[in-house]
Amino acid sequence: MQHYFIDQELNLGMELTLPAELYQHAIVVLRKQVGDQFELVDIHQTVSIVTVTQIEKKTAQVKVVEQLDQNAELPVAITIACGLPKNDKKTELIVEKGTEMGATSFIFFPSQYAIGKWNKQKVAKKLERLQKKATSAAEQSHRNVVPTVEYRENLAAVADGNYDCRLVAYEEAGKTGEKSVLAQALTNLVTSNSAARLIAVFGPEGGIAPAEIDLLKAHGFAICGLGPRILRAETAPLYFLGACSYQLELASVD
Amino acid sequence: MQHYFIDQELNLGMELTLPAELYQHAIVVLRKQVGDQFELVDIHQTVSIVTVTQIEKKTAQVKVVEQLDQNAELPVAITIACGLPKNDKKTELIVEKGTEMGATSFIFFPSQYAIGKWNKQKVAKKLERLQKKATSAAEQSHRNVVPTVEYRENLAAVADGNYDCRLVAYEEAGKTGEKSVLAQALTNLVTSNSAARLIAVFGPEGGIAPAEIDLLKAHGFAICGLGPRILRAETAPLYFLGACSYQLELASVD
Repeated sequence: MQHYFIDQELNLGMELTLPAELYQHAIVVLRKQVGDQFELVDIHQTVSIVTVTQIEKKTAQVKVVEQLDQNAELPVAITIACGLPKNDKKTELIVEKGTEMGATSFIFFPSQYAIGKWNKQKVAKKLERLQKKATSAAEQSHRNVVPTVEYRENLAAVADGNYDCRLVAYEEAGKTGEKSVLAQALTNLVTSNSAARLIAVFGPEGGIAPAEIDLLKAHGFAICGLGPRILRAETAPLYFLGACSYQLELASVD
Repeated sequence: MQHYFIDQELNLGMELTLPAELYQHAIVVLRKQVGDQFELVDIHQTVSIVTVTQIEKKTAQVKVVEQLDQNAELPVAITIACGLPKNDKKTELIVEKGTEMGATSFIFFPSQYAIGKWNKQKVAKKLERLQKKATSAAEQSHRNVVPTVEYRENLAAVADGNYDCRLVAYEEAGKTGEKSVLAQALTNLVTSNSAARLIAVFGPEGGIAPAEIDLLKAHGFAICGLGPRILRAETAPLYFLGACSYQLELASVD
């Protein structure tokens, strides 16, 4: 069933006029008729099934016929923070696939070895485009939340945020004893706080500079490896999210 | 360090002429000079460091100066079998990112709900192009093996292969008790056979038909879910490989 986000509260039995963007997609593009149904997620992340009740020239009415107890969100809010990728294609891949895989927010920042640069005049435009990618991926994957996409001026502004678990993916990291740092961190999250917030920092193509690692360490970040293969800058966050979902949603939590 | 594959056996101290393709990339594109080093992986998957000893007009000599005990392969050989994706871009993404994440082989097959079709005359050409993608991703991620890319006429020909663990990713699958089917299967692999072979089948954009699920079940495939979010056809194999690497390479195996 088609799945959209709407910027208001919905209640059972309520009738409403579709916002222009949803009218355009559901009625014009997908040609939904009176009686057809789709899902709307409201500001409280509740998924409602609505039925189209009336279609006029430029508007349409829908009615909330059911509210679902449906949650597709990871139990931990994960922020993916990336040094600026080499090009927009890679940035978009991170946001699109990362949204499908469950990230709650994305932060991009200029980093020492980054080849990519965001012209200051273009930041707002780039974020708007990425936010649209996040919205359509969240619709497609039937999320309860649209992830946010932000830009920060530097790594210090990224590291300052309020998180329960701070990780930086770094090639040089190996295993510490039986478990990897990542497995240890995720296991701790599972057994502690279910509303935890996690941030993971990823370098751009050129990697992370030693001074950046030092800054992150000083902010309480733990260095974690992502296995023995060298992953491209845009692949590492996707590997990370697959691993997190597996540990937090699929593996035994006893 | 640059990393290439070579179709012969290498021994310490051996001198050899670079194959034309490697000459082209290492000497012409990357402008390696006499004395420069890079890695060559031989037919036994051994990684050697070679030094350029001589450069002529259209050839170059290198000498094996060190052989490394370096293994970047997953402990389980994973075959990713996908119903034909909608377009070449998605197919290439699966092969490229799947190679970085450690898959041993890829199989593409026409499936009931697939939108994509491979014209018979074009199969060889498509496979050649995908094999090149696999090779360059295997070089980039410093693999010991270049994954194979194959095409099979139908799902039965995929299901017939010789594997220790057979899974099909299917949206309808939920959890069975404490652990998911995927977590249970991976845990069993960890505790049993270290040279195991696993195959995972993924549907195309349209999903897997009930008759196809029945065929796979009859061949001993277990249905597994990949978490509560709906993943695009090209995203599911990447999620799967991230989860496998996490369980097999990073999490505690006691």
